[in-house]
Amino acid sequence: MLSPEEFLAMGRAVLAQQGFSVLLGAELTAFSPGKVQLELRLTDQLKQQDGFAHGGVISYLADNALTFAGGSALHAPVLTSEFKINYVRPGVGERLIVRAHAEAVSKTQAVCRCEVFAVQDELEKLCALAQGTIVKQA
Amino acid sequence: MLSPEEFLAMGRAVLAQQGFSVLLGAELTAFSPGKVQLELRLTDQLKQQDGFAHGGVISYLADNALTFAGGSALHAPVLTSEFKINYVRPGVGERLIVRAHAEAVSKTQAVCRCEVFAVQDELEKLCALAQGTIVKQA
Amino acid sequence: MLSPEEFLAMGRAVLAQQGFSVLLGAELTAFSPGKVQLELRLTDQLKQQDGFAHGGVISYLADNALTFAGGSALHAPVLTSEFKINYVRPGVGERLIVRAHAEAVSKTQAVCRCEVFAVQDELEKLCALAQGTIVKQA
Amino acid sequence: MLSPEEFLAMGRAVLAQQGFSVLLGAELTAFSPGKVQLELRLTDQLKQQDGFAHGGVISYLADNALTFAGGSALHAPVLTSEFKINYVRPGVGERLIVRAHAEAVSKTQAVCRCEVFAVQDELEKLCALAQGTIVKQA
Repeated sequence: MLSPEEFLAMGRAVLAQQGFSVLLGAELTAFSPGKVQLELRLTDQLKQQDGFAHGGVISYLADNALTFAGGSALHAPVLTSEFKINYVRPGVGERLIVRAHAEAVSKTQAVCRCEVFAVQDELEKLCALAQGTIVKQA
Repeated sequence: MLSPEEFLAMGRAVLAQQGFSVLLGAELTAFSPGKVQLELRLTDQLKQQDGFAHGGVISYLADNALTFAGGSALHAPVLTSEFKINYVRPGVGERLIVRAHAEAVSKTQAVCRCEVFAVQDELEKLCALAQGTIVKQA
Repeated sequence: MLSPEEFLAMGRAVLAQQGFSVLLGAELTAFSPGKVQLELRLTDQLKQQDGFAHGGVISYLADNALTFAGGSALHAPVLTSEFKINYVRPGVGERLIVRAHAEAVSKTQAVCRCEVFAVQDELEKLCALAQGTIVKQA
Repeated sequence: MLSPEEFLAMGRAVLAQQGFSVLLGAELTAFSPGKVQLELRLTDQLKQQDGFAHGGVISYLADNALTFAGGSALHAPVLTSEFKINYVRPGVGERLIVRAHAEAVSKTQAVCRCEVFAVQDELEKLCALAQGTIVKQA
């Protein structure tokens, strides 16, 4: 049985193996079974033509957070089967934060939800909500 | 009225203004009203821990292709309201290609669909399918 | 300004005008701005071939609850633009209950979420989760 | 191996066992592996307060068509895992028709898409598009 610190360290080790997460500068700032928080600094490289966070950065955060939440709830290697995301506000600020949690866990899958926030002057504003299915690898 | 070449050039100019699309190396390889094709080379930086394309890269392609398809169908500045994506096969190969088209266009929105393919040894394999809503900016 | 009782009565009047909701026996059991609860008795007419609630009944509840939550949050006539639903357990029991709430409300739309439960021997079990967009009529 | 007529008859026998499909008057008008067409007559009982097809009727058609398409592609008892639907036009007319097909079939699941049309004076108009996942029962 892992301690909370070991669990977080394990999650960070997985994230560090994802070339794409390293490229984007994603950090795992909280992680426990079925629950995760990821953050990244919103650099110009992560924006679209209007200066907002690119939708693809926000969907990356949603995809990855749902997968970490589902995988840690299922205690097994997983695949992301699908998700849907609603963008509700442009991503403006210094950082993006996503919080995901497993809502319904069975033997083979976890349905998870997450919310993505933009942080400006320490104020969090909701940017997107997602819901998806994480499945155990066969 | 733009010629097909001018339309493609206009799309490429928009893509070049997206810091995130430049970071990922995305290229616009076909573009006409309501229809688009984007591609990128699958480098290690775009992968996850198992060596496949990261889900966030695939969702970026879907998000961006849906938005280009919807925006060009609506002939107006747009926002991506939402989309859903199903991953059906790991993204393995040299390149990823996404093709999107507007399916239902009204005065205020376009519902679009796209398919993402991984290309290995010139063979395309379907990796993901998405469907989403692009809305005119108010 | 309506009292809570008047607000609930107004919602019930709308539901009573929906031929389909009357056919299914849906009842509005709680209603306030941005928040709603609908219920129905699970008769054989509402089942599929295995004796569970038909997915279409569960999706009806989700669709209607999201629309009531969004419409009451927007204080305007609305249309349901889209939603996604995950089924997580067969609908077995005497009743189905859905609870929806608006999560992100702008001038033109509300993104809402809901959960559908099956009630057996007074125990609620989560059957489905949905998320969708309700938009003001133009 | 079933003949096309036997395959259609088998599908109709399943539909006839769904109390909810009988209640709504749904008919299976075409059925082959991975492909299905369902129809129903749009009676007042299937409408909402503005006289259009209730969104729940349209989502029922989508849910059921996706399930028949996926089940017949997988040749096995199935469950509907999830779907998303975009409504693009009010359902006005004498009948509703849905056509679904399996787009990506693996050993354990089928990702399917469908389109729902309203038929008025023999003219079909697109009302909704859906995409979802059908999984083999464990």
